Amino acid sequence: MSYRAPLEDMNFLLNQVFKIEDSLGGVEAFTDFDSELYSAILEEAAKFSENVLFPINRSGDEEGCHFENGTVTTPKGFKEAYQEFCQSGWQGTNGDPEYGGQGLPKALHVLIEEMIYSSNTAFCLYPSLTNGAYHAIHAHASDELKQTYLPPMLEGRWAGAMGLTEPHAGSDLGIIKTKAENNNDGTYSISGTKIFITGGEHDLSENIIHLVLAKLPGAPEGPKGISLFLVPKIKVNADGSLGDTNGVTCGSIEHKMGIKASSTCVMNFDGAEGYLVGKENRGLFAMFTMMNLERLSIGIQGIGLGETSYQLSKAYASERKQGRNADGEFASIDQHADVRRMLLQQRVFNEAGRALAVFMGLQIDKQYHHADETQRRQSAGLMALLTPIAKAFFTDKGYEACNHGVQVLGGHGYVREWGLEQLVRDAKIAQIYEGTNGIQAQDFMVRKVCLDKDGLLDAVCELIEKEIEVSTSAESEALKQALQTALSQFKSTSEWLKANFSARSYELQGGAVDYLHAAGHLVYGWMWLKIVNSLSESAAPNFKARKLLAANYYRDQVLPNVARLCEKVECGYEAVMAADSELI
Amino acid sequence: MSYRAPLEDMNFLLNQVFKIEDSLGGVEAFTDFDSELYSAILEEAAKFSENVLFPINRSGDEEGCHFENGTVTTPKGFKEAYQEFCQSGWQGTNGDPEYGGQGLPKALHVLIEEMIYSSNTAFCLYPSLTNGAYHAIHAHASDELKQTYLPPMLEGRWAGAMGLTEPHAGSDLGIIKTKAENNNDGTYSISGTKIFITGGEHDLSENIIHLVLAKLPGAPEGPKGISLFLVPKIKVNADGSLGDTNGVTCGSIEHKMGIKASSTCVMNFDGAEGYLVGKENRGLFAMFTMMNLERLSIGIQGIGLGETSYQLSKAYASERKQGRNADGEFASIDQHADVRRMLLQQRVFNEAGRALAVFMGLQIDKQYHHADETQRRQSAGLMALLTPIAKAFFTDKGYEACNHGVQVLGGHGYVREWGLEQLVRDAKIAQIYEGTNGIQAQDFMVRKVCLDKDGLLDAVCELIEKEIEVSTSAESEALKQALQTALSQFKSTSEWLKANFSARSYELQGGAVDYLHAAGHLVYGWMWLKIVNSLSESAAPNFKARKLLAANYYRDQVLPNVARLCEKVECGYEAVMAADSELI
Repeated sequence: MSYRAPLEDMNFLLNQVFKIEDSLGGVEAFTDFDSELYSAILEEAAKFSENVLFPINRSGDEEGCHFENGTVTTPKGFKEAYQEFCQSGWQGTNGDPEYGGQGLPKALHVLIEEMIYSSNTAFCLYPSLTNGAYHAIHAHASDELKQTYLPPMLEGRWAGAMGLTEPHAGSDLGIIKTKAENNNDGTYSISGTKIFITGGEHDLSENIIHLVLAKLPGAPEGPKGISLFLVPKIKVNADGSLGDTNGVTCGSIEHKMGIKASSTCVMNFDGAEGYLVGKENRGLFAMFTMMNLERLSIGIQGIGLGETSYQLSKAYASERKQGRNADGEFASIDQHADVRRMLLQQRVFNEAGRALAVFMGLQIDKQYHHADETQRRQSAGLMALLTPIAKAFFTDKGYEACNHGVQVLGGHGYVREWGLEQLVRDAKIAQIYEGTNGIQAQDFMVRKVCLDKDGLLDAVCELIEKEIEVSTSAESEALKQALQTALSQFKSTSEWLKANFSARSYELQGGAVDYLHAAGHLVYGWMWLKIVNSLSESAAPNFKARKLLAANYYRDQVLPNVARLCEKVECGYEAVMAADSELI
Repeated sequence: MSYRAPLEDMNFLLNQVFKIEDSLGGVEAFTDFDSELYSAILEEAAKFSENVLFPINRSGDEEGCHFENGTVTTPKGFKEAYQEFCQSGWQGTNGDPEYGGQGLPKALHVLIEEMIYSSNTAFCLYPSLTNGAYHAIHAHASDELKQTYLPPMLEGRWAGAMGLTEPHAGSDLGIIKTKAENNNDGTYSISGTKIFITGGEHDLSENIIHLVLAKLPGAPEGPKGISLFLVPKIKVNADGSLGDTNGVTCGSIEHKMGIKASSTCVMNFDGAEGYLVGKENRGLFAMFTMMNLERLSIGIQGIGLGETSYQLSKAYASERKQGRNADGEFASIDQHADVRRMLLQQRVFNEAGRALAVFMGLQIDKQYHHADETQRRQSAGLMALLTPIAKAFFTDKGYEACNHGVQVLGGHGYVREWGLEQLVRDAKIAQIYEGTNGIQAQDFMVRKVCLDKDGLLDAVCELIEKEIEVSTSAESEALKQALQTALSQFKSTSEWLKANFSARSYELQGGAVDYLHAAGHLVYGWMWLKIVNSLSESAAPNFKARKLLAANYYRDQVLPNVARLCEKVECGYEAVMAADSELI
């Protein structure tokens, strides 16, 4: 069983559903590109994912990373795959041409990311972290730092890593202890210990560029006293060549449930030389502007793994014969109702998630590159609202998909040989890192809805209403109705939340995860309606039939969950929050 | 962090909720026992689980089982723990005194099992399989076989294993290929390969007694042509001493997601000497009478792991400080609403599941030991209906609990050190083996409800109605109402199912898992009402407050799920089942 990139669906999304050429038509940065190029790039990414990355996915999990005397060695084949990744230019796909990137749209990049996560999530984390660090430096560092660090990062010659978490400080970064001292020569000395650092140390690249959160002496308490520093593993000479080692060492690597081929490091900074990125005490701000991109990327991990799970379990189910079908014949298990349910349950979330990822990619493209400020602000607003949903809902549903995949295979899903159980183990972390899904839900409910003054939610609801308005085909009629119902319920609960929040702000957060899930279900319903509305007469009959079957399944079996989730939110957590901790 | 057996809750269930002395008062087999003895035994089981089994749980997972030249070695400490387990008489707790067992009630045994699963699931599987094999032999084998095999099995000197699955035959046992030839001297020659055999080979016991499904020459096709054989690893001499090896060898062991200290074996039977258990071609029948016990046991694996997850994540949450509480103070995370939700979400299912397990234990005690045939039949009926629910719902909710546990710990839940991720990996298998949860749901919907002529479901509904009737306290009022609502919805959907089933039997099974979950939620609501109704004035205040908080949480946040699940069932799967497989 192997992974095949869903190119037909990807091209359909870019060209039919989101009409990328029109969408980005007015955006200068992308005027050189066209659909044909996008399609060719997707095809190349597919080949690389299928032929280079997927074949070392299970062996990478079996072998894991090695740690000896401060050195991390990645599993067999990873170094070669990384070389090929860099040589083919994949690291620079979405990077700024000024620094050697290809400047391709994020709407395309999300699909490339999906394929890489699908085929080898542990591998994908190395370039993904480099990409995150690249964006933070690009957005906030001085020109000098950018000139020095960005080009080799876009080549992949230098990798990136992000140093946020400390042993006592995870979700609560305000209490970190890592210190920065100003050397008054343009450099700072960074000292402290960071944990859970993905790609903190490895043997893939010539250098590793750490972005580290630290506190300056006398900085304010809490989140407003944190600064961001660029700390290279190996110092860089004025001419860009590598110089002396810096005081950056890896103390150990974690033994984890999954993503075993990705090194998760304890990093010690011992008076390491670092350079301020952005302003003093504005480190969290700098980090968070880039966090939306990272969160979307981690969300896509969920979609990618969900897609692989669907493909592997579908392939197994079509081969494995057990029991009898409706006609009494000895049958492949994909003819049994419950197996069909488990397969569709995976597919409807994977495909709606992919659509939302492309939609969000387009918003990022507009947010950063559109000439019109109103459009930039609108897209930024959509991203602000949709990012926590994407991160949490993509990954919750991706994890669920992988579990369905195991269940379809039964005992064969539980043994390592078929690869399904690895997907579950690899998918679990996506619900946790880059801000746990509980934190995403809190961000969504509190900051993006209840305390928001910019009408972020209204903007999304208006887009959903518009899609309902333009739906006129017979095929979309019932879905349109169901979406309207779900939208009304969600809006009503959102109003209720806003009305009650100031008096019950802490307690109502008990419903944050349900509220985010309600939003996720609603937004996926919107995506399904967009998909149905984009199925032209000329679509391949099977492709169309598959989409309609899934859309109708989503409408009947999934979308009505919104009502129940809203009901749970409005139920509140008064007694739960009033109780002493020992009663919980 | 360590596991502590929930003895207070266990004693409360036995004495207050189910009044075990009254319940089994009229049952001769148990007249020698009293609550004091039960309580003392639970305490001993707790000590053994906490002090002997839990300490080797993680090391057992890290080391796993070893396979070399057909020999399986269990991880360090397992042999010694097993010796102690046997010497303390735990294997014989629930066994027939005629064969050396202690004859204690199943209602007590389920709680002992829970503790062992809680503290070390992989270990627990060895005695659990012996127990299953013991019961099959006890119910169906000849006196001679029973006299020879049962006493050493109840001592644990000889272990048991069950050979059902073959490479091409899992859920569908009708198509097995293993052959039995009648040697016409009271013995049979068994040849074939069985896979996924838990405890098929190991170094814990002197002998392993395999119960093997096989086909005799000329036997009818399908499930009605299967016979059951007892096949010892080492042949037994007339005096009960061990003789020659038999043709039973272990070909390999599986590398699995979890339960790594439990050997999962490929077993080759090469003309091995076996003895018929029950009648020719009635092997599945013999196996299935014992299957209810095994399924309940595997269900309890879910509760046990859920309990450990709750305890470990609760302990972590009360120590770990991140963020601020409602009063703006730096706070342990168990003061945050979403963490409280995740902890309660674990506890309400664990505790209701434990109650149902005790209830079912009592039914087994009555089914096998009550003097009155009507009572025996009633209890057997309740078991028939509740077993698929218990197996699937206990394990689905146990798996969910373990995932909540990981999420409470965040990154620390994902690394191996804290033990939470192991619980997830160990819990996953329980949704698969002993009949996947999809198969349980099918059994429940089709055989136990739609095709049932004995009023199995009505009997449970009547018990729920009776509990509602006797609920008169103010504390139970709202729960009683909510349960009545859920019951009406569930009955209505059940009627709808029965009315539509004959015309749409294959298609409606798409809703089987949702229907079973609706039943599970309902039955747990019934358990919570029983618990609330059993909280006496004299209960310890904290114990009472904890139970009421959980019952009310269950009432508000969980029980109303029944309506949504029923809605999904009635939605049907017509389009899904009408579609070609390639469209799924």
